[in-house]
Amino acid sequence: MSAERVVTLEELDFLATGAWILGTGGGGDPYHGLLALKALYAEGARVPLIQADTLADDAMVGVISQMGAPVVNLERTADPAMTMKPVVMMERHFNRRFDALMLSEIGGGNSIQPFLAAAKLGRPVVDADTMGRAFPSVFHTSFAVGDLQSYPYALADIRDNEVMVMRCENWLWNERIARKILVEWGSRAFSCKAPRTGREVKDWGIHGSVTQAIEIGRALHTARLRHEDPIAALLTQQNGRALFRGKVIDVERRTTAGHLRGVCQLEGLDDNRGEHYSLEFQNEFLVGRHDGAIEVTTPDLICVLDSVSGEAVGTERLRYGQRVTVIALPSPKLFLTPKGLAHTAPVAFGYDFDFVSAFPAAGI
Amino acid sequence: MSAERVVTLEELDFLATGAWILGTGGGGDPYHGLLALKALYAEGARVPLIQADTLADDAMVGVISQMGAPVVNLERTADPAMTMKPVVMMERHFNRRFDALMLSEIGGGNSIQPFLAAAKLGRPVVDADTMGRAFPSVFHTSFAVGDLQSYPYALADIRDNEVMVMRCENWLWNERIARKILVEWGSRAFSCKAPRTGREVKDWGIHGSVTQAIEIGRALHTARLRHEDPIAALLTQQNGRALFRGKVIDVERRTTAGHLRGVCQLEGLDDNRGEHYSLEFQNEFLVGRHDGAIEVTTPDLICVLDSVSGEAVGTERLRYGQRVTVIALPSPKLFLTPKGLAHTAPVAFGYDFDFVSAFPAAGI
Repeated sequence: MSAERVVTLEELDFLATGAWILGTGGGGDPYHGLLALKALYAEGARVPLIQADTLADDAMVGVISQMGAPVVNLERTADPAMTMKPVVMMERHFNRRFDALMLSEIGGGNSIQPFLAAAKLGRPVVDADTMGRAFPSVFHTSFAVGDLQSYPYALADIRDNEVMVMRCENWLWNERIARKILVEWGSRAFSCKAPRTGREVKDWGIHGSVTQAIEIGRALHTARLRHEDPIAALLTQQNGRALFRGKVIDVERRTTAGHLRGVCQLEGLDDNRGEHYSLEFQNEFLVGRHDGAIEVTTPDLICVLDSVSGEAVGTERLRYGQRVTVIALPSPKLFLTPKGLAHTAPVAFGYDFDFVSAFPAAGI
Repeated sequence: MSAERVVTLEELDFLATGAWILGTGGGGDPYHGLLALKALYAEGARVPLIQADTLADDAMVGVISQMGAPVVNLERTADPAMTMKPVVMMERHFNRRFDALMLSEIGGGNSIQPFLAAAKLGRPVVDADTMGRAFPSVFHTSFAVGDLQSYPYALADIRDNEVMVMRCENWLWNERIARKILVEWGSRAFSCKAPRTGREVKDWGIHGSVTQAIEIGRALHTARLRHEDPIAALLTQQNGRALFRGKVIDVERRTTAGHLRGVCQLEGLDDNRGEHYSLEFQNEFLVGRHDGAIEVTTPDLICVLDSVSGEAVGTERLRYGQRVTVIALPSPKLFLTPKGLAHTAPVAFGYDFDFVSAFPAAGI
């Protein structure tokens, strides 16, 4: 991978497809963001992608995301001007220009948001994020695992409301404060998290995740062009595992405290005929139960894909009758450490059981 | 009134007594704040009180209050260090020292909060506030009536959480954002509102309200020493009107969205024997009904006093059997203008009827 290159127009589709899969059901559909980014590309914008290890130790990196309940994003299009707002707030606060922007989460629509701001502001994007997937809150990030400072961070809405959280007690309070404001704003806010030094990004970022998403998307698109099974291609490329093939027979879903929570029931098809699968989610899929037994949990990536196209199915898009394949992809290594698991295993979501991996060989 | 004088130790008791009456049931009991301020006076602190008209046009004035549900304040003592926090945040933000501090509301505990910060920081307090009483939100302030800019404002809690609201769409959004954060923090926050210029304070402050509170307290204390009726003394001094004398027979009370809402029922005694009175409140008393007919509403000050001592009874302190006297005091003139009424009449609290004054001669 060269130190800096431009993300091409063709790769934007790959990025959106791959990021939606890495979203593990959450992060929101990247589609609206993709349209907005393509419009900027049509106007001539091109966003450079740089590798984290090329950052100067004292570089200042802006960490960008859109926060909210994915269901709300079904109804609201993406707007680069909104994504920019908290970036500009933060630069004004520090009276310093960000050297680069990076992703808070590669999973779902937040894969695109930093590119929108970068295209408008003429900045590079770092090939890294803080989750390697999507997760419900900042508590589940690599920067929280690293106990980096959680403040200041900037929040803006589509009106003229702008908030800077100057200090917070810890990452949980960071999330609690942001979540309340977000809900009051209609479950959508634009955020620029605590700025990171180049050193911090090098030490604690999840590296290569933009490239990973692009490569996943490329594998799927290529397999489909060749009339090959896109899911098989993805599993081979990413060392993933197919867990279940079936159809959706029930979805329970409720939006609470700015999150989408629920459970999805699947009835087996093909090799899984006569079997049952359930998937519990909070924005993202957290727990998979095969005939009642826990087979996989967070931080493994649990992804639900359309069985034919291989495209991701988000938790807000699940509906009766869909033919889907449940797969698992390996978690970033950082989340498999004891400290990482404290932030991302089922206990971090209120469950009373430990991490169950679909990849026991990885050796927890 | 001289341009600047020091508030004496004796006057602190008067201030607390008078402010609690001007709180119209809300603003929170000043008692904890009074103890904290007396402790600072015991250490030698003395707070200068200055008249608004002595402020330079370009002076920068900090507007201080504690936000929250009064019931919470029954359980939490006052801490000058907490009151200081948002002041320091704001001075850091503007890189400028406040020339003076002023009260957001004279009613209740917020009469004392700016004195705590002023005593710690060595600043004068302006003899003015933005309500002339207590009200539930910043929408009900003279600065909102004046359409002054509502941002930036600073919020801090008793942990290590600090928020700067940099912009807000309008005064209602200012309140909505602050209220959500406040509730998440446990219905108590310390705030420094949008800084005001000396010119703005001169044009839009409610002037003389600190002195008014001290004078009310002095009248009550003096009458009691002389074994005279303290309520009669207060009504004479403030051109108030006694509306009802009775005992509390029922209180409905609930804390919702950081406010204390409810209704209190009174049964008549003495001249009002056989009659009934009800008082609806949202932190403060908003509507008084005499035998079912609306007799008085906000923005008139509706105060409930202990029939013997004349001390205020807060909405969070009402209980069965209390002997109380309901009185009305005239509203600041600003709130009687059409724009003022839009912010403070019953419609501003969700009622569908207009202002009913206990002082019809004032000519609305």
